[in-house]
Amino acid sequence: MKILLIGAHGTIGSAVAKELGPRHEVIKIGRSSGDLHVDISDSASIRKLFEQTGKFDALVCAAGNVTFAPLADMSEKDFALGLQDKLMGQVNLVLIGREYANDGASFTLTSGILNRDPILAGASASLVNGAIDSFVKAAAIELPHGLRVNSVSPNVLVEAMGSYAPYFRGFKPVPAADVALAYAKSVEGRQTGQTYQVG
Amino acid sequence: MKILLIGAHGTIGSAVAKELGPRHEVIKIGRSSGDLHVDISDSASIRKLFEQTGKFDALVCAAGNVTFAPLADMSEKDFALGLQDKLMGQVNLVLIGREYANDGASFTLTSGILNRDPILAGASASLVNGAIDSFVKAAAIELPHGLRVNSVSPNVLVEAMGSYAPYFRGFKPVPAADVALAYAKSVEGRQTGQTYQVG
Ligand SMILES: NC(=O)c1ccc[n+]([C@@H]2O[C@H](COP(=O)([O-])OP(=O)(O)OC[C@H]3O[C@@H](n4cnc5c(N)ncnc54)[C@H](OP(=O)(O)O)[C@@H]3O)[C@@H](O)[C@H]2O)c1
Ligand SMILES: NC(=O)c1ccc[n+]([C@@H]2O[C@H](COP(=O)([O-])OP(=O)(O)OC[C@H]3O[C@@H](n4cnc5c(N)ncnc54)[C@H](OP(=O)(O)O)[C@@H]3O)[C@@H](O)[C@H]2O)c1
Repeated sequence: MKILLIGAHGTIGSAVAKELGPRHEVIKIGRSSGDLHVDISDSASIRKLFEQTGKFDALVCAAGNVTFAPLADMSEKDFALGLQDKLMGQVNLVLIGREYANDGASFTLTSGILNRDPILAGASASLVNGAIDSFVKAAAIELPHGLRVNSVSPNVLVEAMGSYAPYFRGFKPVPAADVALAYAKSVEGRQTGQTYQVG
Repeated sequence: MKILLIGAHGTIGSAVAKELGPRHEVIKIGRSSGDLHVDISDSASIRKLFEQTGKFDALVCAAGNVTFAPLADMSEKDFALGLQDKLMGQVNLVLIGREYANDGASFTLTSGILNRDPILAGASASLVNGAIDSFVKAAAIELPHGLRVNSVSPNVLVEAMGSYAPYFRGFKPVPAADVALAYAKSVEGRQTGQTYQVG
């Protein structure tokens, strides 16, 4: 398969590259790292990416930014990044990417545990993760040509605990290699509309 | 209790007014109907509303618009209404309203069944409902002064089937009076961070 991997040099993305790389042609994409570049928060940039990649069999997005801040300090504008970047960035990868997807191709988006198990300063992340998991469930029943869409919802990663530990006390972190398996299940299986929870 | 009821003349809102009216002071608010007016998609309008209402003990929002359209016809801009109106409108009622809320006051938002049970043309509604249910879960753990926040997630209403039936074949509609009970549970109980599913 020809797989577009966005966020390929990130904590999750590099584990996904390691899992899928030996079996598939993985095109590594990042905002500034990788073979090709995209800013998912900008739909014009997404369109330019697909013009460069051409048709594909799977797209994995392991990228997306939200604002982490105490709710007491947040106003409307602090939710805008999450809506435009992690949420609509990934929704737009599906909306625009479907024009470039081969029949039966899959989209695998990334949400995360915080809509199931919230933390302090995580309100925007929770909101966005819930929106992503709900979007894939709904979009799956409307995509044509056997196109599929799933999300992976990981717990905090072992590899991220260096910086994230103070925010995730009591969470049992999951190894990136385990998270990568869920992306393989989405890409190489046939399910759609699923959220794969890892950890 | 002094209760601000946004969408008071709508299908859900009028049932909530009937349920809570006999026991409380209910201020009826709508976009153009009611005692006071607000456009929840505009944070300046929300701020103006609270300047008029002053302090309150409970806010119920039974208002919020999203675009219903086949996913095949939807692009980024078709998701904007749901994000700005039903989603951020209700989030902003909490973010701005907390400044005007008495200690222990509650916010009760409205989502809906579509993130649990999606329909054709409902991708934006599903996304928004999932975001709302996730937001209340996360915001609840950060609100100060005993402030509470819940959502009510109704099935389609009996009273709405006149126009909605073609989109909701096979759904067992729920009477508005039953849905109104969930708002009473949120307002008059003490739970927080909950999504009350009705039907
Ligand atoms: N790490 C965790 O514990 C964890 C747990 C659950 C969920 N998640 C979610 O998983 C996703 C990835 O997390 P991560 O920790 O692997 O991130 P990361 O290590 O910071 O890597 C992010 C990757 O995405 C790329 N990227 C960032 N913003 C982008 C944009 N706007 N457009 C295109 N590419 C962009 C970066 O490109 P460059 O390399 O060019 O900078 C980088 O390759 C995030 O949405 C995060 O919320 C993470
Ligand atoms: N009806 C159902 O079966 C059902 C089921 C599940 C969830 N829901 C959700 O419940 C909410 C209310 O639904 P409904 O059927 O009761 O609606 P409705 O009958 O159309 O009534 C909507 C009410 O909200 C007000 N409103 C609309 N847009 C507003 C805005 N931007 N700012 C302030 N007020 C606004 C309207 O004011 P005016 O009277 O001045 O126009 C009206 O009072 C919606 O979010 C809907 O998605 C409905």
